Amino acid sequence: MSDLVTFGETMLRLSPPQGERVETARELEFRAAGAESNVAITAERLGAVATWLSKVPDSPLGRRVVSGLRQHGLDVDVVWSDGGRQGTYYLEYGGDPRGTKVIYDRQGAAVQTTQPQELNLAAIRNARLFYTSGITPALSNQLRETTAQLLKVAKEAGTKTAFDVNYRSSLWSPDEARQTLTRLFPAVDILVIPFRDAQTVLNYERDPRQLAHHLAAEYNLQTVIVTNGERGSLAWHDNTVHEQDIYDADTHDAIGTGDAFVGAFLARRLAGDGVTRAMRYGAATASLKRTIAGDIATVTKSEVESVIGDDMEEISR
Amino acid sequence: MSDLVTFGETMLRLSPPQGERVETARELEFRAAGAESNVAITAERLGAVATWLSKVPDSPLGRRVVSGLRQHGLDVDVVWSDGGRQGTYYLEYGGDPRGTKVIYDRQGAAVQTTQPQELNLAAIRNARLFYTSGITPALSNQLRETTAQLLKVAKEAGTKTAFDVNYRSSLWSPDEARQTLTRLFPAVDILVIPFRDAQTVLNYERDPRQLAHHLAAEYNLQTVIVTNGERGSLAWHDNTVHEQDIYDADTHDAIGTGDAFVGAFLARRLAGDGVTRAMRYGAATASLKRTIAGDIATVTKSEVESVIGDDMEEISR
Amino acid sequence: MSDLVTFGETMLRLSPPQGERVETARELEFRAAGAESNVAITAERLGAVATWLSKVPDSPLGRRVVSGLRQHGLDVDVVWSDGGRQGTYYLEYGGDPRGTKVIYDRQGAAVQTTQPQELNLAAIRNARLFYTSGITPALSNQLRETTAQLLKVAKEAGTKTAFDVNYRSSLWSPDEARQTLTRLFPAVDILVIPFRDAQTVLNYERDPRQLAHHLAAEYNLQTVIVTNGERGSLAWHDNTVHEQDIYDADTHDAIGTGDAFVGAFLARRLAGDGVTRAMRYGAATASLKRTIAGDIATVTKSEVESVIGDDMEEISR
Amino acid sequence: MSDLVTFGETMLRLSPPQGERVETARELEFRAAGAESNVAITAERLGAVATWLSKVPDSPLGRRVVSGLRQHGLDVDVVWSDGGRQGTYYLEYGGDPRGTKVIYDRQGAAVQTTQPQELNLAAIRNARLFYTSGITPALSNQLRETTAQLLKVAKEAGTKTAFDVNYRSSLWSPDEARQTLTRLFPAVDILVIPFRDAQTVLNYERDPRQLAHHLAAEYNLQTVIVTNGERGSLAWHDNTVHEQDIYDADTHDAIGTGDAFVGAFLARRLAGDGVTRAMRYGAATASLKRTIAGDIATVTKSEVESVIGDDMEEISR
Amino acid sequence: MSDLVTFGETMLRLSPPQGERVETARELEFRAAGAESNVAITAERLGAVATWLSKVPDSPLGRRVVSGLRQHGLDVDVVWSDGGRQGTYYLEYGGDPRGTKVIYDRQGAAVQTTQPQELNLAAIRNARLFYTSGITPALSNQLRETTAQLLKVAKEAGTKTAFDVNYRSSLWSPDEARQTLTRLFPAVDILVIPFRDAQTVLNYERDPRQLAHHLAAEYNLQTVIVTNGERGSLAWHDNTVHEQDIYDADTHDAIGTGDAFVGAFLARRLAGDGVTRAMRYGAATASLKRTIAGDIATVTKSEVESVIGDDMEEISR
Amino acid sequence: MSDLVTFGETMLRLSPPQGERVETARELEFRAAGAESNVAITAERLGAVATWLSKVPDSPLGRRVVSGLRQHGLDVDVVWSDGGRQGTYYLEYGGDPRGTKVIYDRQGAAVQTTQPQELNLAAIRNARLFYTSGITPALSNQLRETTAQLLKVAKEAGTKTAFDVNYRSSLWSPDEARQTLTRLFPAVDILVIPFRDAQTVLNYERDPRQLAHHLAAEYNLQTVIVTNGERGSLAWHDNTVHEQDIYDADTHDAIGTGDAFVGAFLARRLAGDGVTRAMRYGAATASLKRTIAGDIATVTKSEVESVIGDDMEEISR
Repeated sequence: MSDLVTFGETMLRLSPPQGERVETARELEFRAAGAESNVAITAERLGAVATWLSKVPDSPLGRRVVSGLRQHGLDVDVVWSDGGRQGTYYLEYGGDPRGTKVIYDRQGAAVQTTQPQELNLAAIRNARLFYTSGITPALSNQLRETTAQLLKVAKEAGTKTAFDVNYRSSLWSPDEARQTLTRLFPAVDILVIPFRDAQTVLNYERDPRQLAHHLAAEYNLQTVIVTNGERGSLAWHDNTVHEQDIYDADTHDAIGTGDAFVGAFLARRLAGDGVTRAMRYGAATASLKRTIAGDIATVTKSEVESVIGDDMEEISR
Repeated sequence: MSDLVTFGETMLRLSPPQGERVETARELEFRAAGAESNVAITAERLGAVATWLSKVPDSPLGRRVVSGLRQHGLDVDVVWSDGGRQGTYYLEYGGDPRGTKVIYDRQGAAVQTTQPQELNLAAIRNARLFYTSGITPALSNQLRETTAQLLKVAKEAGTKTAFDVNYRSSLWSPDEARQTLTRLFPAVDILVIPFRDAQTVLNYERDPRQLAHHLAAEYNLQTVIVTNGERGSLAWHDNTVHEQDIYDADTHDAIGTGDAFVGAFLARRLAGDGVTRAMRYGAATASLKRTIAGDIATVTKSEVESVIGDDMEEISR
Repeated sequence: MSDLVTFGETMLRLSPPQGERVETARELEFRAAGAESNVAITAERLGAVATWLSKVPDSPLGRRVVSGLRQHGLDVDVVWSDGGRQGTYYLEYGGDPRGTKVIYDRQGAAVQTTQPQELNLAAIRNARLFYTSGITPALSNQLRETTAQLLKVAKEAGTKTAFDVNYRSSLWSPDEARQTLTRLFPAVDILVIPFRDAQTVLNYERDPRQLAHHLAAEYNLQTVIVTNGERGSLAWHDNTVHEQDIYDADTHDAIGTGDAFVGAFLARRLAGDGVTRAMRYGAATASLKRTIAGDIATVTKSEVESVIGDDMEEISR
Repeated sequence: MSDLVTFGETMLRLSPPQGERVETARELEFRAAGAESNVAITAERLGAVATWLSKVPDSPLGRRVVSGLRQHGLDVDVVWSDGGRQGTYYLEYGGDPRGTKVIYDRQGAAVQTTQPQELNLAAIRNARLFYTSGITPALSNQLRETTAQLLKVAKEAGTKTAFDVNYRSSLWSPDEARQTLTRLFPAVDILVIPFRDAQTVLNYERDPRQLAHHLAAEYNLQTVIVTNGERGSLAWHDNTVHEQDIYDADTHDAIGTGDAFVGAFLARRLAGDGVTRAMRYGAATASLKRTIAGDIATVTKSEVESVIGDDMEEISR
Repeated sequence: MSDLVTFGETMLRLSPPQGERVETARELEFRAAGAESNVAITAERLGAVATWLSKVPDSPLGRRVVSGLRQHGLDVDVVWSDGGRQGTYYLEYGGDPRGTKVIYDRQGAAVQTTQPQELNLAAIRNARLFYTSGITPALSNQLRETTAQLLKVAKEAGTKTAFDVNYRSSLWSPDEARQTLTRLFPAVDILVIPFRDAQTVLNYERDPRQLAHHLAAEYNLQTVIVTNGERGSLAWHDNTVHEQDIYDADTHDAIGTGDAFVGAFLARRLAGDGVTRAMRYGAATASLKRTIAGDIATVTKSEVESVIGDDMEEISR
Repeated sequence: MSDLVTFGETMLRLSPPQGERVETARELEFRAAGAESNVAITAERLGAVATWLSKVPDSPLGRRVVSGLRQHGLDVDVVWSDGGRQGTYYLEYGGDPRGTKVIYDRQGAAVQTTQPQELNLAAIRNARLFYTSGITPALSNQLRETTAQLLKVAKEAGTKTAFDVNYRSSLWSPDEARQTLTRLFPAVDILVIPFRDAQTVLNYERDPRQLAHHLAAEYNLQTVIVTNGERGSLAWHDNTVHEQDIYDADTHDAIGTGDAFVGAFLARRLAGDGVTRAMRYGAATASLKRTIAGDIATVTKSEVESVIGDDMEEISR
């Protein structure tokens, strides 16, 4: 029985070496990566028991994804599909002004046809927390329906739910996203929203603090976390706002920073920590992630705690 | 103006190092590869002026394909497409009894929507020879139609046509292949057919020699080449059969062997060589290809001739 | 609850590229490898539920081992140790006459101090089969004792036991090995013995067939498997001898061939297959392993079955 | 018919990984690189039709250069030489205070014997612009003569000429350079000069702005571009000075920055842009180049334009 | 006859690529590295004749170390041991906040059993300078004794002695270190001490300048060098303090910085330079080291001098 | 004082991975390699004290060569040259029918200007044996003269001389070679000649045995070794012919096989072994070399002896 169950797509990530371009590359690094599995792995590594539900093609490519997740100790509980592709993406690192580029190649991915009844719903019902993100309903009409159903399954079973807006402009328009997501929010207990997504998708114009208040009130949320890049993050909970600065990092690979934050936050909340302490774990884990190649935060709890350092002691009292 | 124009799909090829499996690989080699572009490159390298027509996505992946072909001096004349994927395949080398495995991932490839009028038809009309293979009509209904149209365009312009049956069981059934291909054969001047494809697709039970006679007669073909793996190949032409043994090779990578044969044969025929001599170039180029990583026969004319060696002199008289 | 529980050491394997020597190498390939975990992974991949028990240092090196095993879906149930090293070995590939060389570096490995009560004995008691090999008692006096105890725990709980002699001359003398192992044999149900080990350790001079009869009788064994390299293997069971030829393979990496055989044999026996059929799976899996880099047989059940091919149908009746 | 024809040397570039020294390196990265081909490729990628003229040895090394340039779509029109070497250089990346080191190995390069009549002079005559740089006449007495002749051929045919001073202290002294180059300047329409070259070669002591005025007047130049490293660049044209700041970049590989600037500037001038706009493209392309491994600016027009961003719209009016 | 003889452990260093973690790495870089051999190599490269004494296992691993040192021209004079391991360490690069991690694996290393009489004592007696560091006596009781004996051998023969405190908390406690080291100091002529080691081991609370005075007086030292990270270093000699700033560096690999400093300082002192000039070489060599992968300062004297630059001329008068 | 002193060129060797061609390669392996240094290293590794004399450019490339040789413990005693190149060659592995290709790039190499008086002639005078090969006089007129002089220096000092014909058709014609070499033979004590070189250069038509007799008589040689590829080798000495078969090998890299043979033969002769035994070491070392990447036989004496095996005991009596 897992503390945390997540559902979502995980892709194969193909990236040329630093400085090389896809157009002329001869070697690619090959990894597994996906928002919901990133969150689950981070949580597992920081002490939670976590399960990832998904649908993957019964092929070496599907097995490559599963192998990449299992090595972190994650419980992988997937439907092996005869049809459908394994989604992939190409990632090209580039400093300013080129920027890091992502080229998605996920059309027809097997996961896009997942129906709720194919999944291990008992795992969701028996978990303490269910998590998915806004990428999932953006992938297909079926997944829009499935996401809503899974949140409902969780709610009815008394499993708490967490959701990260994770808006991706390559998948849908702000309007489509807003219409779909705002229908899901009422089933969510813990909502994570990047401030720039609030601006883009919700046309929200005020500041992160007011956004948190507003969302909590509007959708009767238990916890609202607003992340705001280098400006840090805040959590609204029990009518209180907890602010958290980022920890500085020498960035090797920024992909997965947000997932590391969320995974650590959820793991510590599941472990009984208060919101302030969980936010601190989130920020520290996110900063460590940035030093590591790939989407996945291959960290240990003690490494996270050594980032947090002495001031933690005051907090943990 | 090119001697040879080809049309077809070219994919990105991703392969783990020798001995590694896709399921656990961390690095992939990254190349461009496709039957019709392989043939065109071989022909170009052996002295023909060759053009490859196709449709590729206007993305780093599409540009990767084009870059991989252009470096051999091939004239690349493509439609840059806003929609559709770039087909890819994963190749896992493996000795006996595992065997080399190919995992295709080409659903929704941009090339599958190519309509004749999108292509540079003038290039076909002005060429001396037009080539495509049985992979092309197998990829989509649209390409079934397009292939037929392109052969017709060539015929009407007096451009000779060459066609390799290249049966791929992952793309269509023997029945579908037979029905489609036999409708194309009347528009073909030079037909290449692996003997095992004749067995599978045409249910042909007799020997390669009789197959060549039969096909030549049935479809009024000018030249029929039957390849038969390690047993060599033969060409029916002007009512004469020319037999050609293989040249032994230490095989590093067998993919593309047939295309190297065909490309060299066509290049030498275009250069005015007789069928016997062109078959010899074909076999020698094919054996060199097997020593080279990737689908493409990165050889020079003088290397091919040094394989053929002294006996060539007798023949060239 | 696992079908198969194994206990033993797993090492980190460091190997320079083909043709390179450790003395001048600049890059090493890095993998996890161990007889008992190899067996467990093969069994897991062919359908058994398998667990590996061990003791590893609580360090990045210990975690590297665990990560390498978990990616195959193996249940890893280890004691994390504050003291002791992580065993490593260097493997240098070399064809004739140089030969492949192994340089062990396992002194003071954490696993060598494992006491029975540190391990999840319930897993052994609840399993259908417990497996370890002659490497384990050779590693330390403590492990000599622990191995005996674990076999006893299994026996008393009604869990069947399997044991591979796996003699390593770098660990102990034939005399030491004989004295220790023959004391363990009475607690074993399924004994695997390479014929050359019988010659070296047991001073056995007759042929494999008589060896099997002899051992079965002497130690009241249920099944005796004698492997004999290129000459194939045989199983004595129910007073019948089942012979099995090897399947030919293009060898990329021969390490782990025996473990692949045993893992597949045990998986199929656990799945209800008869001895003859299980031997066939063993031989086919072993031949596939030889085509794969590393100690671990990264194969699928369908790949094994495609090696076995048509004749299997007769046998499976 | 090309818009832009360039002539010059292209070398093979061999570089150890970041942090490694040539003295102890075991692996080298292998690329083609040369000032004039860099300019031609950048121009081609930004929309011009470009041709590179040169002489290369008819060997795998010469073919390696040609392959490396052709993959960018550049038209390569070379004399294949039986004698002479292929120039190479070793590049060792190093941060401060070590600095990036270049070790040239170009003695006896085939290109150094190029006589004008060996080249496709019709290509120059039919082009809209001919470009070479101060590296070319520095390579040999023959090339001093050939450079002058090619500029004359262009002039006489009404083809405009562009020339980058590109002073290399390893090739000649400031005195030799000054004497040779000032004799070439009268045949030049567009002159590019790094300000530090003006200081070293021309002993020029005033500021870039006055340098541009002075050179334009002295040599009757149509356009003078003075580049000045981090301080930006300026163009004198039609008696007006256009200043351009650099765009900041996270530098991965600084080699080729100047060539990227020039190639983009020329491409945009050929496309009809005004000097200010062309300078902006130059600066943006140069900044992108710094993020890319190798000498070549593997960029697209849309990437350059996204660096230039919104302010471009004002400018393009 | 060498100018400089050093004695100590050298390990094999295994490191995953930048951004990768040991836990999930598949490739490791493989080098030799050790404080005393680093110092000897730096000195050799800057003009001294240097010898490294040690004991290494007679195995490919021991030969790997020797090969790695000899390539720099170092005279390697070792006892080849039948017993004992070759020490190794894993180095994981990581920017802030992760930090670079070192995982030592040196238990039972052959060097730890070295007795003085096994070594080439004549080399020490004939040298002008003998060097070892505080790592050596920390490795075993035997080495505590051996270090004392070697310093005594040097002293009695009139060979000067240099010693770097090099405190390693993973090897011994501050108390153990203090007791052992302060007994060695009276036999030392040139003492190098990082200021943080003075704080940790000697509980020294005042500033580096006073520390130098204090140590010189207390132990009758000829020269005391206090290094203080980014704050530079100072040397007390002949009752004068010489201060030296660091030279800024783009750090690729910080390991070995201190050894590069000491090796350069000693080489220049042996060459007859004054303390101020030798300190400048030390600081410049240390800054170059930081740009180079691995522990070893693969630099040339002219590179060091080009860092020092013009101001050196004043100094060298 | 060395047992063996050799003089000759050593080049940098650049090779793409197996299966790749120079024309399209992106990575090259980088090693040092040369006939005379190969011989010296093999001799050193098998127990001789060996020195290599040469002239190399004072550049990172020259230091790369020296570093590559020193790591094997070879004493490198070179003239560091301000002028002249470092010779390089590209090696492209290829199985049949492509064959392994070598592309030399050694024009203007610094070594070609070596005059006898630049070298450490005392080393030759004090050695027991001086060795060089027919590559050396083929490199330049100066080296023709220098080779003759060095053999004379050796002769006059009572140092024995060994010489391998090593005919390279890329360097000179058979006629030039014959004229030069036969003038050197009178100064040679031990002559090594591949039988195919005798056929090409000396127009010798009879068999290896008669060749040895003939050469010994004609030039008053002490020992004549005729190597004959897969057919083995023979040594004429004291009017007796000693025949030696090859040891079979799985060939990874055949370059350097002959040098390994000669180095081992000379080392064992210097160690006092008889000709038969020394020939056996030669053949065994040559077979081991073939399993190792690069030109250099990175072997140990005990490895060579384990190839020779039991029959050695009879012989050594």
